Amino acid sequence: MTSILILNGPNLNLLGTRQPEVYGRETLAMVEEKCQRHGTSAGVEITCLQSNHEGVLLDAIHAAKGRHDGIILNAGAFTHSSVALMDAIYSVEVPTIEVHLSNIHARESFRQTSYISKAVIGQICGFGSFGYLMAIDALIERFKGGSDE
Amino acid sequence: MTSILILNGPNLNLLGTRQPEVYGRETLAMVEEKCQRHGTSAGVEITCLQSNHEGVLLDAIHAAKGRHDGIILNAGAFTHSSVALMDAIYSVEVPTIEVHLSNIHARESFRQTSYISKAVIGQICGFGSFGYLMAIDALIERFKGGSDE
Amino acid sequence: MTSILILNGPNLNLLGTRQPEVYGRETLAMVEEKCQRHGTSAGVEITCLQSNHEGVLLDAIHAAKGRHDGIILNAGAFTHSSVALMDAIYSVEVPTIEVHLSNIHARESFRQTSYISKAVIGQICGFGSFGYLMAIDALIERFKGGSDE
Amino acid sequence: MTSILILNGPNLNLLGTRQPEVYGRETLAMVEEKCQRHGTSAGVEITCLQSNHEGVLLDAIHAAKGRHDGIILNAGAFTHSSVALMDAIYSVEVPTIEVHLSNIHARESFRQTSYISKAVIGQICGFGSFGYLMAIDALIERFKGGSDE
Amino acid sequence: MTSILILNGPNLNLLGTRQPEVYGRETLAMVEEKCQRHGTSAGVEITCLQSNHEGVLLDAIHAAKGRHDGIILNAGAFTHSSVALMDAIYSVEVPTIEVHLSNIHARESFRQTSYISKAVIGQICGFGSFGYLMAIDALIERFKGGSDE
Amino acid sequence: MTSILILNGPNLNLLGTRQPEVYGRETLAMVEEKCQRHGTSAGVEITCLQSNHEGVLLDAIHAAKGRHDGIILNAGAFTHSSVALMDAIYSVEVPTIEVHLSNIHARESFRQTSYISKAVIGQICGFGSFGYLMAIDALIERFKGGSDE
Amino acid sequence: MTSILILNGPNLNLLGTRQPEVYGRETLAMVEEKCQRHGTSAGVEITCLQSNHEGVLLDAIHAAKGRHDGIILNAGAFTHSSVALMDAIYSVEVPTIEVHLSNIHARESFRQTSYISKAVIGQICGFGSFGYLMAIDALIERFKGGSDE
Amino acid sequence: MTSILILNGPNLNLLGTRQPEVYGRETLAMVEEKCQRHGTSAGVEITCLQSNHEGVLLDAIHAAKGRHDGIILNAGAFTHSSVALMDAIYSVEVPTIEVHLSNIHARESFRQTSYISKAVIGQICGFGSFGYLMAIDALIERFKGGSDE
Amino acid sequence: MTSILILNGPNLNLLGTRQPEVYGRETLAMVEEKCQRHGTSAGVEITCLQSNHEGVLLDAIHAAKGRHDGIILNAGAFTHSSVALMDAIYSVEVPTIEVHLSNIHARESFRQTSYISKAVIGQICGFGSFGYLMAIDALIERFKGGSDE
Amino acid sequence: MTSILILNGPNLNLLGTRQPEVYGRETLAMVEEKCQRHGTSAGVEITCLQSNHEGVLLDAIHAAKGRHDGIILNAGAFTHSSVALMDAIYSVEVPTIEVHLSNIHARESFRQTSYISKAVIGQICGFGSFGYLMAIDALIERFKGGSDE
Amino acid sequence: MTSILILNGPNLNLLGTRQPEVYGRETLAMVEEKCQRHGTSAGVEITCLQSNHEGVLLDAIHAAKGRHDGIILNAGAFTHSSVALMDAIYSVEVPTIEVHLSNIHARESFRQTSYISKAVIGQICGFGSFGYLMAIDALIERFKGGSDE
Amino acid sequence: MTSILILNGPNLNLLGTRQPEVYGRETLAMVEEKCQRHGTSAGVEITCLQSNHEGVLLDAIHAAKGRHDGIILNAGAFTHSSVALMDAIYSVEVPTIEVHLSNIHARESFRQTSYISKAVIGQICGFGSFGYLMAIDALIERFKGGSDE
Repeated sequence: MTSILILNGPNLNLLGTRQPEVYGRETLAMVEEKCQRHGTSAGVEITCLQSNHEGVLLDAIHAAKGRHDGIILNAGAFTHSSVALMDAIYSVEVPTIEVHLSNIHARESFRQTSYISKAVIGQICGFGSFGYLMAIDALIERFKGGSDE
Repeated sequence: MTSILILNGPNLNLLGTRQPEVYGRETLAMVEEKCQRHGTSAGVEITCLQSNHEGVLLDAIHAAKGRHDGIILNAGAFTHSSVALMDAIYSVEVPTIEVHLSNIHARESFRQTSYISKAVIGQICGFGSFGYLMAIDALIERFKGGSDE
Repeated sequence: MTSILILNGPNLNLLGTRQPEVYGRETLAMVEEKCQRHGTSAGVEITCLQSNHEGVLLDAIHAAKGRHDGIILNAGAFTHSSVALMDAIYSVEVPTIEVHLSNIHARESFRQTSYISKAVIGQICGFGSFGYLMAIDALIERFKGGSDE
Repeated sequence: MTSILILNGPNLNLLGTRQPEVYGRETLAMVEEKCQRHGTSAGVEITCLQSNHEGVLLDAIHAAKGRHDGIILNAGAFTHSSVALMDAIYSVEVPTIEVHLSNIHARESFRQTSYISKAVIGQICGFGSFGYLMAIDALIERFKGGSDE
Repeated sequence: MTSILILNGPNLNLLGTRQPEVYGRETLAMVEEKCQRHGTSAGVEITCLQSNHEGVLLDAIHAAKGRHDGIILNAGAFTHSSVALMDAIYSVEVPTIEVHLSNIHARESFRQTSYISKAVIGQICGFGSFGYLMAIDALIERFKGGSDE
Repeated sequence: MTSILILNGPNLNLLGTRQPEVYGRETLAMVEEKCQRHGTSAGVEITCLQSNHEGVLLDAIHAAKGRHDGIILNAGAFTHSSVALMDAIYSVEVPTIEVHLSNIHARESFRQTSYISKAVIGQICGFGSFGYLMAIDALIERFKGGSDE
Repeated sequence: MTSILILNGPNLNLLGTRQPEVYGRETLAMVEEKCQRHGTSAGVEITCLQSNHEGVLLDAIHAAKGRHDGIILNAGAFTHSSVALMDAIYSVEVPTIEVHLSNIHARESFRQTSYISKAVIGQICGFGSFGYLMAIDALIERFKGGSDE
Repeated sequence: MTSILILNGPNLNLLGTRQPEVYGRETLAMVEEKCQRHGTSAGVEITCLQSNHEGVLLDAIHAAKGRHDGIILNAGAFTHSSVALMDAIYSVEVPTIEVHLSNIHARESFRQTSYISKAVIGQICGFGSFGYLMAIDALIERFKGGSDE
Repeated sequence: MTSILILNGPNLNLLGTRQPEVYGRETLAMVEEKCQRHGTSAGVEITCLQSNHEGVLLDAIHAAKGRHDGIILNAGAFTHSSVALMDAIYSVEVPTIEVHLSNIHARESFRQTSYISKAVIGQICGFGSFGYLMAIDALIERFKGGSDE
Repeated sequence: MTSILILNGPNLNLLGTRQPEVYGRETLAMVEEKCQRHGTSAGVEITCLQSNHEGVLLDAIHAAKGRHDGIILNAGAFTHSSVALMDAIYSVEVPTIEVHLSNIHARESFRQTSYISKAVIGQICGFGSFGYLMAIDALIERFKGGSDE
Repeated sequence: MTSILILNGPNLNLLGTRQPEVYGRETLAMVEEKCQRHGTSAGVEITCLQSNHEGVLLDAIHAAKGRHDGIILNAGAFTHSSVALMDAIYSVEVPTIEVHLSNIHARESFRQTSYISKAVIGQICGFGSFGYLMAIDALIERFKGGSDE
Repeated sequence: MTSILILNGPNLNLLGTRQPEVYGRETLAMVEEKCQRHGTSAGVEITCLQSNHEGVLLDAIHAAKGRHDGIILNAGAFTHSSVALMDAIYSVEVPTIEVHLSNIHARESFRQTSYISKAVIGQICGFGSFGYLMAIDALIERFKGGSDE
């Protein structure tokens, strides 16, 4: 069965209580459950992990090799500073999609730099938690070989 | 009936013959037809327009006000230089999604600057023509009020 | 009879409905009529043109040579990116005044760069539609040769 | 009776003798008298002050609060370096217009930076001493509440 | 018969009257006729087009594919800002040479940035209208396969 | 008899063996002979010099005054760092054309800075060894006074 | 009882032995004890934590919500690179004060960039370990509502 | 008796009326009196001076040598531009603390540059008028030799 | 017996499988064993540690003080962003050598910034796993006091 | 009789006591007296003025017109920030020489920017108080018309 | 027999007398002899050359092709400015190692830019004259084909 | 007898014929003779050397150690790019003064960067050939130990 890993980075455990006017009122548990249901209905297995530790995220990406068919990564604030996460994605060669809840391109300038975006297939931002579902769809489309990029 | 305008900018008329290793082999007609079918099955009306003229794109965005419920814009090379398109999107207040076929964040540095992204809801890039379908889904989700951004 | 051309650039056709808290509630037609009345009372002919097409604006500036004694130009968003408009003003040598409705110097940094300001006599910004009348007065003063710059 | 303060900064006392090919042959006294006459005919009181001392200009702006209805400020070379003048204008909340004799946007690059322009209603530059009269008209228009910015 | 398209961009229609001390006294018609004669004597067909509209230039480059063997492009002020023209040249894969009448490298710094030069075979600048003839020669040399680059 | 000096700078002695996929397979001797033949047929004398020493190139430019009617200079890597060569060209006032085998504008960014281009008549780049012949033609055209720059 | 969390970041565990001429001879234990005593005498509870792991500091800030009334944070070298710590402070909305032992503004330029300072109430630097006591006083003053910022 | 000079720079005379939402409602007189009381209770003499004139502040710093044991300086807008104040502090070698009412690190970028901070012992910002009392405490701690920096 | 600590940072655990065309086919275990053998033959003890966690690397450097005579550090992607690792090396004052498998100076520009290189004795890069052996030799040479730096 | 004005700016009144290892042990009075003696022996009148007030220096430069034949200006820290002093020198057209006691080009980078140097004949720095005597000699040489610049 | 060329650039002839606290007390002759002995014992021939002339170094690199199997280059100050040396190394395709006596990454910022490092196999810096021996070892390892880069 | 070396760099051999409106009409021979006479009358020996070769200038500075008591260096265009000349001056520790004929601070911005000025005692510019005589005087003053820097 096809398997997708959803990785969330620093501060995303606070979803729902952190600046709800920006990030919405859904908690991370609710978002993860929504992803699970979306995966189930599409016949793919969804595994979720959140951590505030860059090292834990790196270990998880390493471990994904041979275990998951795709990664959906919201690296939070590490997006803008972590060369190590970029290197990890390049190293494991598991297709990865970058997701952000808000439109990072319309925020502070330091949020517009992303090392991670250099290593991923594509980026989805600005659609709140629906962006994770879009990413699942895009991975499935890719596994079908149906997308003509 | 809900109506979505799909706007494509300069050089996108060449789709299918232009650098197919980067942009795929589908022609613009094929992509637009795929969007029409996707729209029909979801019950939304899709209108398509392509132009190499910035002024034509500006006029189309102005005309969208009161006529279309959402805009999907792939402004091509104008993405990186047109303040006027950004201003037009702000002016008409029709929800707009920015789409790019390739992952612009992994290309030349001048393609990573986007005025348009400051005025849109969100950005989707790197998923080839499937990105237009994702954008249609995201607009529909938004019209339902079901997305929790 | 002395003749002045008033040129308005991209998105200015939306005046009155576009962000009225920034740009006011007068429509472009109202502003142009106000300029006509001000011109008539001062004995100068006023011609107005608005376009979202940079090429149309360039053609209009070219055609102004020998036909108009002065140009009042609000190039909107083209102000910040068009080297071609600057070159056109230099080429026709018709005295030109740059007008902006809002105080562009107090807005986003990319609105503070202006190629056009290098080719004009002077700049007026921040006075809403009254700025066009001030520009008419300044051209008339110049035609009288009474200004001591 | 409505009252306007005209403040001139460093080196403007030399007007008429300083680089007349750039700044004209009128002395500051002549310019101030022209402003007085223009004010009288429009029914507003005009008070003039020039100083080479930044501190004197700051004190004058502070003292304007409650005494003058508007300020016309040509801060000369302080335009490009004085954060304190910008802060003073913000502090007293007396509507202020920035005037420059020459078109500063077409001169050396360091003359194109202005802290003051961030705090003023608008800027007029490039019209020689006629710019002061335009500024008086713009303040009067504003006092009438007739301008639609 | 071999066919070359000569494209001239914004403001080049003013050639001969625009700043003749910089751009010479030949009109564009004279330059185009000179090119025609040079082409005839070398046995190549020359087609000429000038436009102030970026979109028209883009359309012309698209249409050149399969119709012309080479393009000579003087994009005027669009040279320094148009990513779309660069993309168009890459897309049609018709060998293109960039020509400028003046030595742009010795002028204002913003004239020294060129997106177009990244997509062309080579650049010729500083030789007035003779540069077009040099470009014709260079294309012919290339068609012969005689140049050893 | 009209006389032209062709100066080649550092590493150009390796032509033919150095990265032939970039610089071609002709040796410098072959290029120089081609220039000689082209000069002979046009009735101008061609003198050639190559050196890896900046000082030798400076001495040669100084000595050209009164001895040669024009200089064709391919300064190689010194193009991007030598203020002294620029000063030398300004000093001797012998018309000089800058030639590069490859299109330097499409290469690494440090190759796009050129002090030399500020002091020359014009620049030719991207046409391989044929560029030297184009430069000879351009100098001859200039000597005839037939070019209308 | 009012409760304050004192967080120390990377390398601060070495205090007393690390470059004592810069950071003093007090060990971290001594500093923490001094803070405890100062807190006790003022009737506030002091909790101390040091970690070299960014993730541990993030977890601690998250856990402070609802448990501590204020945070005193010396993030050490993470001050200059961690967007995640800034986001965490914004997220939990517990008033936080930034403390540095040395005057970071008089050191290397990369130590003068601080993401954290954007999210805190205020910054205290240059006063050695006494700065922690000042921060405790400032938080107490704030809890009293007696400070008029 | 130990003596401390409190120097306030441009626009700080407006305290209490100037943007009270940013700077509080206390007047400068109230702040100075609060400092006097705090000094008296700690047994140190407090002298206060405010000026909008950079020269007056420079003279005051010069005169502090041999007369005061420490300086507390809120240089207001001069903080960001005055090399002369920095030089004065270095010259007189009286220990000086920099105070700001607001957290300047969270404001406009030009307020984050400070020449003065290079010459002072330390900086306190973001604590409103309470910051002056903290600075008095820090100087007293320093005079005791009790601080372990 | 002399003791050397070899520290490897993020992603280096993937050695041998990660981009083998760049980093070679040896696994980290093989490299560490090679170092052990080289150390044994030279009479020095080699201890190896790899971690993807910045905090673990910091703790290991702290713990090296008094336990190891030298450190060989390949900090991987942390090289380019970690001020904390630089501070740790400065703090423990154990002689440290920076090693990179590839020539980082010939790669992406963000890999050419290194905070760590400011705190180390020297840097070795571009020699694959042989670089670790060179670093062992350089430390031994240094312990002998035979190197004349 | 020829007359020279020697102007010293902020903090130069502290000469002799301020950082004597940098600026020497001579007081300003001693330096001025040395200049007087040097002037007397050369038959020129020397007038000296020092001020910490930029406005006083501006007034002095204005007053120099028609009264002094040359100015020697050590503007101290104002050198690096005062556009007004540059404008004043341009305005009065009295030949001015810039002097600095220390070699400002070997100090902090912000001391290497000078607006004043754009308006003066020449600059002398690094020779302590002897630089003033050199400046007097250079002005006298200039008055003689003997210098061949 | 395998042959290695050791090239030293400007000012390295002064080794031993030039700033011995930075560069050590060994003279260049001593270093070259040490390299000879190290080569002899390893069975490789060592040739040494030093020059202050960039052209001489370029000629030497050209001549190395076919004559030497590897180059060890300490280009001294030319490291930071010579594009020509970089081009020469690329042209001859003889494996080259860059050596510096001091750790250039911990010195002035202009010493951290190196064109040469883009063309070499690897870089060794900070190990004094021992670095040359390390470079010899690295070349020998490479000739053996034993290094797994 | 005290001995001074006067070194002139590239293009200075053209003095008198090169842009005489900038550099004067004196030839280098005339300037050198004037220096000789000035030296003789002051009892110091003057040696002169000019070269367009950076290597020759480096050799000359090396040779000056122990032979000359001071150097006067006009490095011409090498001033702005040669790190090697700066290193040479630091190495030989012969007091050196930098001279320029024109006021380089009022010319193109790239002429305002000087590596050499970091290594010299002081700089004299803008006084034409008289600057060399001023430099001789300044060295003599220094040899006397009479200057109080």
